[in-house]
Amino acid sequence: MKMKYSHLIRVRYCECDPMGFVHHSVYAWYFEQARTEQMRNKGLSYKEMEENGLIMPVRSMQIEFKKAGRYDDVLRIEVLIPEKPTVRCIFLFETYNQQDELLNTARMEMFYARKLDLKPIKIPAIILEKYDF
Amino acid sequence: MKMKYSHLIRVRYCECDPMGFVHHSVYAWYFEQARTEQMRNKGLSYKEMEENGLIMPVRSMQIEFKKAGRYDDVLRIEVLIPEKPTVRCIFLFETYNQQDELLNTARMEMFYARKLDLKPIKIPAIILEKYDF
Amino acid sequence: MKMKYSHLIRVRYCECDPMGFVHHSVYAWYFEQARTEQMRNKGLSYKEMEENGLIMPVRSMQIEFKKAGRYDDVLRIEVLIPEKPTVRCIFLFETYNQQDELLNTARMEMFYARKLDLKPIKIPAIILEKYDF
Amino acid sequence: MKMKYSHLIRVRYCECDPMGFVHHSVYAWYFEQARTEQMRNKGLSYKEMEENGLIMPVRSMQIEFKKAGRYDDVLRIEVLIPEKPTVRCIFLFETYNQQDELLNTARMEMFYARKLDLKPIKIPAIILEKYDF
Repeated sequence: MKMKYSHLIRVRYCECDPMGFVHHSVYAWYFEQARTEQMRNKGLSYKEMEENGLIMPVRSMQIEFKKAGRYDDVLRIEVLIPEKPTVRCIFLFETYNQQDELLNTARMEMFYARKLDLKPIKIPAIILEKYDF
Repeated sequence: MKMKYSHLIRVRYCECDPMGFVHHSVYAWYFEQARTEQMRNKGLSYKEMEENGLIMPVRSMQIEFKKAGRYDDVLRIEVLIPEKPTVRCIFLFETYNQQDELLNTARMEMFYARKLDLKPIKIPAIILEKYDF
Repeated sequence: MKMKYSHLIRVRYCECDPMGFVHHSVYAWYFEQARTEQMRNKGLSYKEMEENGLIMPVRSMQIEFKKAGRYDDVLRIEVLIPEKPTVRCIFLFETYNQQDELLNTARMEMFYARKLDLKPIKIPAIILEKYDF
Repeated sequence: MKMKYSHLIRVRYCECDPMGFVHHSVYAWYFEQARTEQMRNKGLSYKEMEENGLIMPVRSMQIEFKKAGRYDDVLRIEVLIPEKPTVRCIFLFETYNQQDELLNTARMEMFYARKLDLKPIKIPAIILEKYDF
């Protein structure tokens, strides 16, 4: 079964640009936060994972922007892991505002790696079993 | 003829994360700066363009990461407009470090729009003629 | 009577630097967010205030750092307005981590100004009356 | 003799807020960059210093804002070390725009510390001798 998780984020003033919109770079922050909370929801701490020598670098990021977010909006970030993670882990995101308008969709490909030497490794069983794949 | 432009950016400490790498979101800042400098090199000011009511929102952004940038690196951002802009304008980017290693490639699709109402419009002739298409 | 308000913020990965600490610049974001939430708690929306032509530029900011914040910490930002606002409005902040350790203290002086021309103005009665001075 | 150094920084679009001004948090980035360049100008690399186990955490930061910076401004950051560094090192900053208007002044107090345990230490002679105190 696929994982799905929703995380709410209030847009900060400093995250908006002179057009009054959430700067496009900022969604990478929101997605990172939403991923962290999705993991926490599964009983996993990214912080502890990293302290134990396992990191998740980003291999690619694609974002399709439909509509701009604005200051003080409460955005809902939907996170989905569409396939069983192996060495790589795909994340899909959808961002909605409080009027339930879709602001953007995104796909990120990350991989599990040893912090020591950045060598890619298979997702540890202890992490995989937390998910319902 | 295609446009090509190179811009050098020194990585700031605050742009790097606990892994010691340039945070992946930061490349969107670098690409924005490189685009601005590419325009300036053609005699165009994005600032004046915006003051005159023309903006360029981002429609999509894709980045493929090969290797991490690090604090104090001098990165070279290569900017290319691969096709004649119309309403939309495609930008391709390549980021290299000072050892000439390719760190990432990116594609951004932007469009010309009226600041007033965000209505997409065709690239004004006065801008297009600055390019060599 | 003085106003006091507490706001919780979870530290994001992208907000931490290569030392693993919350970058010192980031507290300005947290304080801004805590101020916004303090206002909301009083029935005031900074967003609406700005839409109505009233802004609050920063005149000075002082931060004393005691201890570093870290990734994934849940920080508690205490906000206090120590004196009745007039043209200027003073904010005092204290940041604590989840172990209740004081990370830093800060003082910001802001002023009420017309968005149109940045001319300083006295705090509108409709705002002042929301506070308990 | 006192150290003085000037560093030019072009304001990025993403560094400006919905008022169209450089966000007040961003000056901490500029000051950090100016400090790094001042050190480089003296033959010192902060990167190498950190790789050798010496870091410089921030103990306090005070900024007085006079006037706002704007997108595309070329700012001149003046850096001054007003007294001989010991364990602590004071930095004074002044930010000017291209019309030579003073935008802000700042004071930062940092200290030399071992990366390993954050224990404050006296400035190493090898660094002090690079300065002209």
